[in-house]
Amino acid sequence: MRDVAIVGVGQTPVREHWDQSLRHLGHTTVQAALADAGLETVDALYVGNMLSGELSGQEHLATLIADFSGLRGIEAAKIEAACASGAAAMHMGVLAVASGWADAVVVLGLEKMTDTLPAESLAGLAMATDQDYEAAHGVTLEALAALLMQRYLYEYDVPRKDFAVFPIIAHDNAMGNPHAMFHLRLTPERYERAPITTPPLNMMDGAALADGAAAVVLMPYEQARARGSGKRLVRVAASVSATDTLSLHDRVDPLWLEAAAISSHKAYTQAQVTPNDIHFIELHDAYSILAALALEANGFAPRGKALELATSGALARDGRLPINTMGGLKARGHPVGATGVYQIVEATLQLRGEAGPNQLERAHVAMTQSMGGPGSTVVTHILVGE
Amino acid sequence: MRDVAIVGVGQTPVREHWDQSLRHLGHTTVQAALADAGLETVDALYVGNMLSGELSGQEHLATLIADFSGLRGIEAAKIEAACASGAAAMHMGVLAVASGWADAVVVLGLEKMTDTLPAESLAGLAMATDQDYEAAHGVTLEALAALLMQRYLYEYDVPRKDFAVFPIIAHDNAMGNPHAMFHLRLTPERYERAPITTPPLNMMDGAALADGAAAVVLMPYEQARARGSGKRLVRVAASVSATDTLSLHDRVDPLWLEAAAISSHKAYTQAQVTPNDIHFIELHDAYSILAALALEANGFAPRGKALELATSGALARDGRLPINTMGGLKARGHPVGATGVYQIVEATLQLRGEAGPNQLERAHVAMTQSMGGPGSTVVTHILVGE
Repeated sequence: MRDVAIVGVGQTPVREHWDQSLRHLGHTTVQAALADAGLETVDALYVGNMLSGELSGQEHLATLIADFSGLRGIEAAKIEAACASGAAAMHMGVLAVASGWADAVVVLGLEKMTDTLPAESLAGLAMATDQDYEAAHGVTLEALAALLMQRYLYEYDVPRKDFAVFPIIAHDNAMGNPHAMFHLRLTPERYERAPITTPPLNMMDGAALADGAAAVVLMPYEQARARGSGKRLVRVAASVSATDTLSLHDRVDPLWLEAAAISSHKAYTQAQVTPNDIHFIELHDAYSILAALALEANGFAPRGKALELATSGALARDGRLPINTMGGLKARGHPVGATGVYQIVEATLQLRGEAGPNQLERAHVAMTQSMGGPGSTVVTHILVGE
Repeated sequence: MRDVAIVGVGQTPVREHWDQSLRHLGHTTVQAALADAGLETVDALYVGNMLSGELSGQEHLATLIADFSGLRGIEAAKIEAACASGAAAMHMGVLAVASGWADAVVVLGLEKMTDTLPAESLAGLAMATDQDYEAAHGVTLEALAALLMQRYLYEYDVPRKDFAVFPIIAHDNAMGNPHAMFHLRLTPERYERAPITTPPLNMMDGAALADGAAAVVLMPYEQARARGSGKRLVRVAASVSATDTLSLHDRVDPLWLEAAAISSHKAYTQAQVTPNDIHFIELHDAYSILAALALEANGFAPRGKALELATSGALARDGRLPINTMGGLKARGHPVGATGVYQIVEATLQLRGEAGPNQLERAHVAMTQSMGGPGSTVVTHILVGE
């Protein structure tokens, strides 16, 4: 099994890109990553995407992007794992390079969710839940997050306002990220005044619909080092995907994200680190409650204590465990199948010392974690800078 | 890079399974493959599927199947490459085992296309073409096959009736396969009388809509050999995926399937064989014209000479290069995302000497080839028996 390096990154600002189709978003982002890597072609393109069929009437997406990007002839496939699709595609890219099958791979996360009516996009997202036993009865991902948050408030008797810290940090960090969707500061007062969407969630507890694309180029670590490119190398120290029950209602203990626990702990073993060695985390804050539960499942806070950790200041950029350093899903934006790759791109920029005004002082070991559904699929990566 | 073995297979008869949902088809087939392998669980499940979102309103499909099959906690992802989805999932499974990441993987091909109106299923299939430049103007996969066949008839001045040999062989071979969809012999006279669907195609030139599921279990070859299981092992000697332009209209030479040529020739190199060493092929005869063009691109016939090879008798079960030994896409059936895995299952049964009345005498080196769109994505596997 060969070590794998990230040798190039590219990203398109998260926006409502009504003037660009899937192919254009994909093409420009792939080309940006290739240019960053100093490569003209690769052996394979893996595209993380959830909703191209439902919302754009387009499957066979990876071959379309390979073709339109001038990468004819190479291998291409789309990987789908709901909102974790981008991270799942990254995992496949790592396997392709680690196995010796490919010497250079582009992993693209790509999603377009704002060309359709919001109701259609939300119905598409609900396909991440069980269509027969959940979606058919009106369950949405937002409803599941609301159930989890309500249960958390009840079990641990914490004040709802303490959840504000997650979107506040996200919006603070997005201020320094030109690729972020939202550039506005959030105060505790604004959080309090935000309209309730699905009780107890308010509008600031969840990520909005968005379009976006992010890409990374992978190579064998030794080859990348021998080649040199002027960029600092980032090594993929762990890449692990795990699942839980698809449905929340099948879990004995809904406040324990088992797939996050399995995925993160296997990743620690693979990377030979402990949670204490992680310098910062790009967390899946599609809803703040998911970020809180992930901190607990990943071993960064005892059960019921994630809000204590968050309100202590530890998770801010100047804290001891910064999260979502470029805005996270909440403020950078959450084009679902692209999100997992944005996380990898952002962590890579931190590890290379290229995070601009958001650059962390201590950024040598990064963790990224992406989720499909309410923790039903969880993909964790640990990245190490040179 | 570790050698990979197929240690278990499972399949569900191809039918109109109106009484079974995606999860049931997937579950029973995964369990059949695990039982055949003598395993209770695996490290990962890769599901090849194209249309679960469009036709069943279900994404996050792989996690659903892992959960429902009692494989909680394992990695799971869906792989989409249009009609080549199953073979693309097989390729990912091979990478996962070859890389050392997984010691046991289930690859499931799964598709359900008959619960919806045929017009809806066909519109779903058209998502394999370019939505903006082809499907939006009414192009379907059948129309593209018709264009190719018309061009073939014109360029090579061959009689249309010679194409009959492909469905005739397929239907002959399906007679001995209880999992096949169609159990009726086809004669040249019946072929001639079949109604024209899209000129020059008639109803016997293409595969019908169908539901189905097929699965294989992969392990490292050395581990599989050390373990033993009473089954003859099958080694995956090559696994290669390649692409062409997505659209037929972008090709300088539409009668040359470049992706098939790249994919097969890389596979020969990987397996260290030549076309002469291949004992039989499971070919992608979604349309007879695609099978003919593939034989040429893969090096089994000179350009324009595939029908000569076919009408010589060489492709029948007692010929020197049998194809589609269990019925192929035409007669076993073509549940699109599942097809690539059915081919692997059928080739494995031949290599293990378990093909029943259809058992070939000379079955030591097999080739399977699956296509998405009109040769836009092509995945080739070469399998070697013990």
